[in-house]
Amino acid sequence: MSTQWEDFFAIHLPPTDFEDNRSLLREFCERHERHGRCIVLITSGGTTVPLEYNTVRFVDNFSAGTRGAVSAEYFLEHGYAVIFMHRLKSLEPFTRHFSGQKLLDMLDIQERGPNTTITDIALRWFETQAESEQYQVSVLKKVCDIAALKPDSVDVLAPVLLRYKAAHAAGALLHVAFTTVSDYFWLLRAACECLASSGPCAMLYLAAAVSDFYVPKDHLPTHKIQSDTGAPIIQLQLVPKMLAPLVNLWVPSAYVVSFKLETDENLLIPKARAALEKYKHKMVVANQLQTRRHRVVLVTPKTSQEILLTREEVHAGTDIECLLVGEIVRRHKEHMQLEGVPEPVPEAPLHSPAPR
Amino acid sequence: MSTQWEDFFAIHLPPTDFEDNRSLLREFCERHERHGRCIVLITSGGTTVPLEYNTVRFVDNFSAGTRGAVSAEYFLEHGYAVIFMHRLKSLEPFTRHFSGQKLLDMLDIQERGPNTTITDIALRWFETQAESEQYQVSVLKKVCDIAALKPDSVDVLAPVLLRYKAAHAAGALLHVAFTTVSDYFWLLRAACECLASSGPCAMLYLAAAVSDFYVPKDHLPTHKIQSDTGAPIIQLQLVPKMLAPLVNLWVPSAYVVSFKLETDENLLIPKARAALEKYKHKMVVANQLQTRRHRVVLVTPKTSQEILLTREEVHAGTDIECLLVGEIVRRHKEHMQLEGVPEPVPEAPLHSPAPR
Repeated sequence: MSTQWEDFFAIHLPPTDFEDNRSLLREFCERHERHGRCIVLITSGGTTVPLEYNTVRFVDNFSAGTRGAVSAEYFLEHGYAVIFMHRLKSLEPFTRHFSGQKLLDMLDIQERGPNTTITDIALRWFETQAESEQYQVSVLKKVCDIAALKPDSVDVLAPVLLRYKAAHAAGALLHVAFTTVSDYFWLLRAACECLASSGPCAMLYLAAAVSDFYVPKDHLPTHKIQSDTGAPIIQLQLVPKMLAPLVNLWVPSAYVVSFKLETDENLLIPKARAALEKYKHKMVVANQLQTRRHRVVLVTPKTSQEILLTREEVHAGTDIECLLVGEIVRRHKEHMQLEGVPEPVPEAPLHSPAPR
Repeated sequence: MSTQWEDFFAIHLPPTDFEDNRSLLREFCERHERHGRCIVLITSGGTTVPLEYNTVRFVDNFSAGTRGAVSAEYFLEHGYAVIFMHRLKSLEPFTRHFSGQKLLDMLDIQERGPNTTITDIALRWFETQAESEQYQVSVLKKVCDIAALKPDSVDVLAPVLLRYKAAHAAGALLHVAFTTVSDYFWLLRAACECLASSGPCAMLYLAAAVSDFYVPKDHLPTHKIQSDTGAPIIQLQLVPKMLAPLVNLWVPSAYVVSFKLETDENLLIPKARAALEKYKHKMVVANQLQTRRHRVVLVTPKTSQEILLTREEVHAGTDIECLLVGEIVRRHKEHMQLEGVPEPVPEAPLHSPAPR
């Protein structure tokens, strides 16, 4: 029983980009630890469970990655260095504000002179269809100031762009991506190994929706399951609970926060308490599928605190993560004091350039 | 057996935005039919199969939606009006060239004067943190010309942006989105109802990766499956083959192209032929998971034509969809001639403004 997680790592190979990501994690943690900065590992988005070795089909967990992406922005504002470990293609901090089309719509084709219309420009474009793109662009530059930001978009974009550039200039945000539950576990363990030396200054904010069930690699069919041989029965197995070795072995001094999402309100708090008893970590953030954007409950072994957005706050577009992260940061500071971290922690401003 | 698809529609309710989408489809098809323009319905991306009624877990099909999104751009260049029916959040024409971060990196915070650095700007920003965003932006405008496109990004962005704006100005591209296999079928049937009157001028380019298996709505558990009651067994059922009523009843004169993706090369052509015999449509585009970006086979009841990119073409970034769409458009024109559509089809230029 106690070695299920070790068996998992023995059977499932690391993802192909594992060593690159491990180097990035190591460099990131060492650099911020040198500056005495708190580091939070945020996991975000759902993990997949392949149903075929050459994967066409997989079981997925509902998660756009909103909680993690929004929270990352608030942790950066609190001066944390952020490892953003997310499902490939899930929402990411800053860019989450702009889907592809929304950003393209912020751009405009600006015309030279009052008599050039979008149709004229398009006509010129289609006339030069056979030419190279360089040539086409050179022709277009004669008729229009192409591709500029619309003035009213600048105001929308500027605050986000500035935070984005500041976080990157400071080297305060590291992205690493996973897809399958196996990729996720490999990255999680590697990140923990790098965070261990930060002791109580490290926080784990495990918001990813990790699969509970999977098909072990040695039970997978090689090829796509065929539909003409009848409907298949999929026998799933339980995924080992990595929270056990994580809390006990990998990062025993860190401030570990896990998340629990249920659809049945009655199960929410009992299941959160049961998880705390079993894994002995610091906090479970309990939330319900239907109300998760405006209500969360912070459950610890002895307390529970509800954070609820008012109707006005919801209308004003307040992120519940602003309150959630603020409260968790406050409790993390208490944890560091209890663990004897000298106060005040030297907190380098976020916008100072990275020393690499 | 013959009413399985009718049972499906009887059991599964239409998606909530169904009536809105149906209106959009109807207006789009009527407008382009009036102008005698060919219309292609492209389906793109994977469909999901929920495993719970309040869905946390679902089975998904591997598909980023690349084939459909790239093809849509080429159909527009051939003068087609394009219905782009795609999985929510999958790749879309034009925006596919720029992921969120790529677009943000094309933008720059431009500084006023030589002595303002990104750090100065960030500092000013953080000093005004407590103020409203409007106030912050007004302060920033005094120190920098914020958020403008980088000059070298303009050249990259311009050709794509221009095509995007031209397609939208012409009203030649309609997006409708689905998530579950049930949403997909409802939209597919509605689109066919609107396309039927275009007769042989309509094309269906069914590139979506549609689930073969599902759990019928009346077999779904209401709440999230619990992991403490052991590992579940999922009994899947076969999804009814909608291609049968589609070809026979919904759009009997249209040019229908389906796609077949396999991981086992030996199954590819036999399965494509079997589908053509069974459903009596015009073409199966057969492709293999591992080589689908540079090799496809166009299979008809009597012929098969391989389209293969050379190593040089792959390196030069040639889209195989350029060749694929070109060939299919050529065959569609032949089909229209055979069906007695008067030639030449009046082909309004793509960039003419929409008449609404």
